[in-house]
Amino acid sequence: MVIGQRPKGTDSEKRVVVIGGGTGSYAVLRGLKQYTSGLTAVVTMMDSGGSSGRLRDELGLLPPGDLRQCLVALSPDGQTTLTLRNLFLYRFDRGKGLNGHSFGNLFLSALMEVSGDVNQAVKIAGRMLGIKGQVLPVTLTDCHLCARLADGSVIVGESHIDVRTEKPQVPIESVFLDPQAEANLPVLEALAQADAIVIGPGDLYSSVIPNLLVRGIPEAIKASPAVKIYVCNLMTKAGETDGFTASMFVQEIMRYLGPGASLDYAVVNTGSFPAALLKRYAEEGALPVHPDLDACAELVSRVSTGDVMASGSLLRHDPAKLAGLVMDLVGRQPATLVGAGPRPALSSSAR
Amino acid sequence: MVIGQRPKGTDSEKRVVVIGGGTGSYAVLRGLKQYTSGLTAVVTMMDSGGSSGRLRDELGLLPPGDLRQCLVALSPDGQTTLTLRNLFLYRFDRGKGLNGHSFGNLFLSALMEVSGDVNQAVKIAGRMLGIKGQVLPVTLTDCHLCARLADGSVIVGESHIDVRTEKPQVPIESVFLDPQAEANLPVLEALAQADAIVIGPGDLYSSVIPNLLVRGIPEAIKASPAVKIYVCNLMTKAGETDGFTASMFVQEIMRYLGPGASLDYAVVNTGSFPAALLKRYAEEGALPVHPDLDACAELVSRVSTGDVMASGSLLRHDPAKLAGLVMDLVGRQPATLVGAGPRPALSSSAR
Repeated sequence: MVIGQRPKGTDSEKRVVVIGGGTGSYAVLRGLKQYTSGLTAVVTMMDSGGSSGRLRDELGLLPPGDLRQCLVALSPDGQTTLTLRNLFLYRFDRGKGLNGHSFGNLFLSALMEVSGDVNQAVKIAGRMLGIKGQVLPVTLTDCHLCARLADGSVIVGESHIDVRTEKPQVPIESVFLDPQAEANLPVLEALAQADAIVIGPGDLYSSVIPNLLVRGIPEAIKASPAVKIYVCNLMTKAGETDGFTASMFVQEIMRYLGPGASLDYAVVNTGSFPAALLKRYAEEGALPVHPDLDACAELVSRVSTGDVMASGSLLRHDPAKLAGLVMDLVGRQPATLVGAGPRPALSSSAR
Repeated sequence: MVIGQRPKGTDSEKRVVVIGGGTGSYAVLRGLKQYTSGLTAVVTMMDSGGSSGRLRDELGLLPPGDLRQCLVALSPDGQTTLTLRNLFLYRFDRGKGLNGHSFGNLFLSALMEVSGDVNQAVKIAGRMLGIKGQVLPVTLTDCHLCARLADGSVIVGESHIDVRTEKPQVPIESVFLDPQAEANLPVLEALAQADAIVIGPGDLYSSVIPNLLVRGIPEAIKASPAVKIYVCNLMTKAGETDGFTASMFVQEIMRYLGPGASLDYAVVNTGSFPAALLKRYAEEGALPVHPDLDACAELVSRVSTGDVMASGSLLRHDPAKLAGLVMDLVGRQPATLVGAGPRPALSSSAR
């Protein structure tokens, strides 16, 4: 072994592609960046609400919000001085035209305008933020997410699917993009070269599946030699996944990956939920996802279970627990943590 | 002489304080940064128009526009890659709430909000931009510039003085601040330690003199051991300095510096003006400032003359010519240029 040269294939060099956008990807990326500098975040570009939606409508740019969240997730933590990261997290709370705008969104919008190239803009922002890895829009096509409901009607726009005001009781039959979107080429390259592909967690129809609707993405995932892992949500979501069990999440992912697809692992939470929090979530129509492990096992090669929940006031995946588990699945047992922090205790059962 | 240690007092260590704000300061700073890394830009905080005025009104922050211009002036030129500097120069050209906002202004506003401290915000922005020297708001008091006209009426707000729509024919009698503003402490320190203080160029009543209206600033200038230089404007300005000769500019500066003040130098342009440009400026009521050098010489110790104009489509001071002249006056003849670029030829007559 040559001194000063690390052996190939250590965790710190693992190429892991995380597919999603929003809060779910944020947790996965924050955890995984402790293990590897070879992260790629593939981000949905169908957001149409809030600050992103306004920028999209008024400036005609791709929505920057999910890109921003993933950039922040991959930026260095624990800076003592005020940095660009803090600014990215800032949201204007007053001002006629600025109220509600995230500064990070304005930053990305200005960069897209000045550079005239979305991939370039995100790359520059990443460099300025000192991120580990890369963030890639799944597509550069300006398109909208649409949902066909069980009654045949169609909802247009991610924000109307994310927060169902129209017919919230009618289930989603399927989702599609209008117009059809083409894959961003660097995403296809990242998928082809990946050691692992992590799909989810995140809102099933409004954050995760939109990535799989982009032409070329399911094929690239299927063709990739990577270990393929789906991380199932902890909670159902009103108007989107009401009554869904774990296997129903997995089934929908398989459906949008298309014929011939296979997942190596599904990660399903089996930790217990604090009662007080469940009550609050139930008021918003969100219930724990039932871990029907046997049904899951009929869909994927192996089911990985354990407590992957964060403590705190929100029912979220714990970045460290989730990343530890994912890195185990990627092929090294036990995973060796790059950087500091104890490795979380985790029981992982497989079938 | 110790190897690796530069002799004290070289040009690159000269502490030069530039007082103004806006386009005039931009030119001086861009030129002087080639000579010294000890620059301080003292910036008026009375702007009430444009993007700055909107942010001031809507967010209740100090106006960032002049700070931004000086930060850009002191940031490194000639980057080949897209940098924060390019973003600072970008202005949104559409979008209901964003149209007309300079990104640099939004950046500084967000920094002020997140840091909760204007001096700190400007310092951090300076560090991010990699500036040479420092930029300081002349005051942290939220105040407005007011002009008393010759007919006794009062105009409130810098933007209404800068662009005179009210009674443009009635001359300005005097300007004052409401409420009275207190000096920003680091400005007093910079003035006390300065080797040179450069006042102007810039709009007399709306950019330069507002700095001298801040309590403590005239006293600090008078008490400073620095060489004191006033750089006279090239052109008069409609509604502000109509018919002004060079000595009238100097006289107004002396008046607002107050009793006991002295200027070591007045820099007066004696270069000739391209006729085509003069015609265009005349249409806006702007005429060349007549260099009444004898009258000037009765007000200041020495009058420095020469061609300090830039070539191009605007009648502006040339950064390199002006900086070369100023550095000569600061005490080293001829000035030694730090960094690249030829030293401009300049005839400098003194009395």
